[in-house]
Amino acid sequence: MASLLRATATWGLFPWRGYCSRQGKLSKDFVEALKAVVGNPHVSTAAAVLQQHGHDESIHRCQPPDAVVWPQNVEQVSRLAALCYNQGVPIIPFGTGTGLEGGVCAVRYGTVRDNVLNLEVVLPGGELLHTAGQGRHFRKSAAGYNLTGLFVGSEGTLGLITAATLRLHPVPEATVAATCAFPSVQAAVDTTVNILQAAVPVARIEFLDEVMIDACNRHSNLNCTVAPTLFLEFHGSKQALAEQLQRAEEITQYNGALNFSWAKEAEERNQLWAARHNAWYAALALRPGCKGYATDVCVPISRLPEILVQTKEDLQASGLTGTMVGHVGDGNFHCVLVVDPEDAEELRRAEAFAYQLGRRALALHGTCTGEHGIGLGKRKLLQEEVGAVGIEIMRQLKATLDPRGLMNPSKVL
Amino acid sequence: MASLLRATATWGLFPWRGYCSRQGKLSKDFVEALKAVVGNPHVSTAAAVLQQHGHDESIHRCQPPDAVVWPQNVEQVSRLAALCYNQGVPIIPFGTGTGLEGGVCAVRYGTVRDNVLNLEVVLPGGELLHTAGQGRHFRKSAAGYNLTGLFVGSEGTLGLITAATLRLHPVPEATVAATCAFPSVQAAVDTTVNILQAAVPVARIEFLDEVMIDACNRHSNLNCTVAPTLFLEFHGSKQALAEQLQRAEEITQYNGALNFSWAKEAEERNQLWAARHNAWYAALALRPGCKGYATDVCVPISRLPEILVQTKEDLQASGLTGTMVGHVGDGNFHCVLVVDPEDAEELRRAEAFAYQLGRRALALHGTCTGEHGIGLGKRKLLQEEVGAVGIEIMRQLKATLDPRGLMNPSKVL
Repeated sequence: MASLLRATATWGLFPWRGYCSRQGKLSKDFVEALKAVVGNPHVSTAAAVLQQHGHDESIHRCQPPDAVVWPQNVEQVSRLAALCYNQGVPIIPFGTGTGLEGGVCAVRYGTVRDNVLNLEVVLPGGELLHTAGQGRHFRKSAAGYNLTGLFVGSEGTLGLITAATLRLHPVPEATVAATCAFPSVQAAVDTTVNILQAAVPVARIEFLDEVMIDACNRHSNLNCTVAPTLFLEFHGSKQALAEQLQRAEEITQYNGALNFSWAKEAEERNQLWAARHNAWYAALALRPGCKGYATDVCVPISRLPEILVQTKEDLQASGLTGTMVGHVGDGNFHCVLVVDPEDAEELRRAEAFAYQLGRRALALHGTCTGEHGIGLGKRKLLQEEVGAVGIEIMRQLKATLDPRGLMNPSKVL
Repeated sequence: MASLLRATATWGLFPWRGYCSRQGKLSKDFVEALKAVVGNPHVSTAAAVLQQHGHDESIHRCQPPDAVVWPQNVEQVSRLAALCYNQGVPIIPFGTGTGLEGGVCAVRYGTVRDNVLNLEVVLPGGELLHTAGQGRHFRKSAAGYNLTGLFVGSEGTLGLITAATLRLHPVPEATVAATCAFPSVQAAVDTTVNILQAAVPVARIEFLDEVMIDACNRHSNLNCTVAPTLFLEFHGSKQALAEQLQRAEEITQYNGALNFSWAKEAEERNQLWAARHNAWYAALALRPGCKGYATDVCVPISRLPEILVQTKEDLQASGLTGTMVGHVGDGNFHCVLVVDPEDAEELRRAEAFAYQLGRRALALHGTCTGEHGIGLGKRKLLQEEVGAVGIEIMRQLKATLDPRGLMNPSKVL
């Protein structure tokens, strides 16, 4: 047997950075109380630290917090939450980065949501909740309401997630990555749909437009044909892989592919995926000093060709600098717009482009966000997406679980 | 290309049977108001009809309702819900049967929860909610709180589900079913774990003990060896299937299998799975006139061997008539106890066996119910499973969404 199944592993998110913010300064007594929980070195009110925690990779302007706290364990998180709850101080969790790249697992392993079995959550009042019961990690359950699913993707607005139990999948016996360049966006996305229709069990399938490929070639020293491209990965036994590759190649040829080349060795594969993972920075490097603005729509697979082709045309017509990249196996793709934050007119154009794209996804029965979340930027689109009743139910859930409205305030709703 | 991917289909649950119940009789005016919504022929207060809707396949004794209503469309469900809400009349949805056999999809396609993309729900006050937004059916989303996951498995206690959008999977190019008899329960379950560890992409894997096999042989005219047995199904291309079968057979031989035979033709396969689906009635036929009592635990795959072997020993020691059958690819299995409902001592023994099994699953980090739900029978085990904080959050969610407590009252919590 080639591989070992470990059904689950529990991992901690510590050390993580949490920060407390509210209108106006925190009292000296309150800062002392924070220090009493986590120790002096783990609380900061220094201007540089506050500034550093006052923005993220997005183009949205955020207020810096009044204090930054680095709790060392879940008990401290719980005591901090109770302290803030009693004093009415809002909490905004701040991670170390984007973390899980759920999007890279297309079709074969499911999305991140499908692979979270249990969460440890500190509730706003400081109580500790294990969404599936403490220590549990089973494959399916009908035991009461699905609290795990409610907290996944809640963007820190219902409580502070301090640990997650994830489902692991067996390491495949063999892995092959492939790249394939196409004469058009249409040909690349038609290939994606055909591969899924043919039930070829592709492990990853990623689309990059020619602007993105050009940027990756420069930033990550690749030597790919500058054309709309698919990156694919196949997992399985050696025999199964040979068959999968053959079927995938036949489909790419049917759609007029310019080439189809595969990388069997781990080093070559890793270089390819490292380039894909660095695509954000490759795009930013197209205009040094500018900021990235990412869209995140997801549509039913059957609507993917029309939205990708139309979006490519719109992007070219907009005059914006932008690349396209997507986890197309899920129907999800991003435009990374590279925008001068000082140019108000350009910023408005980027916002209009992103809003129009979100609305187009909604019209095609899709969602305005497959992965990134609502945050501040997509609250209006969320209302259009789920409707008045859906928003009202979400508001009620938020009010029930966070009655003082202190958890990542103003986000999502 | 061998198959067609249709990303989703929307199907209605109509006609379904709903009934209204409360302590004491409904007023004549209220019955007239129900008739005004759905039409005279779709409301009944006849004693025989009430009696027929006063019990299910379980051993739990239920009160018959005061009226049975057959709404014809979602607008009528909505108007009925508003009527009952205003008058404080509880509603208990009553389906046409168990419907989805989520358990038969092990490892390969995920559980039912993973395959529900959207739900149409009539809320207690009569409002219509589309959990993912009206008409939407995308593969993944980060748009607000996951309302779909909250309603799946809520057992009618939060609202009335009137339609579901499901993810469909491509029809495989070829399908093969196999049966394999083993000298012991241990050998059969070790084989299950080994097949999953080896990442053989088995589509279904079902365990039946020798008592269940004997019952199926009689009830469904099978001719299987009377021994602990696995039913397996493989999906894929012809070439991939040959490899999967070979690997599975090697693993069964390694574990001392008595035989391994496979059925390629649809008719033979269908006979096998029909027998499996009729296992409940095959078990009941072991003691005509008696009632079935099913357990439903689910544990991490790694703990499956010890719980199955121990449960088999306990079942034999208990003196109860019972079979074992399970969707072991998910870690989920059932004991079907066949009990004389007039024999209070035997009933108590069956309840004690089921409770002990539930607690053993909890001790192994599992759940007391993988599929059947909590209902009335497992409310105590649910408290042990999710803990005081989990129960309190579930109570708050119930109180928020069903403030008058009219949706399937007393179930789950």
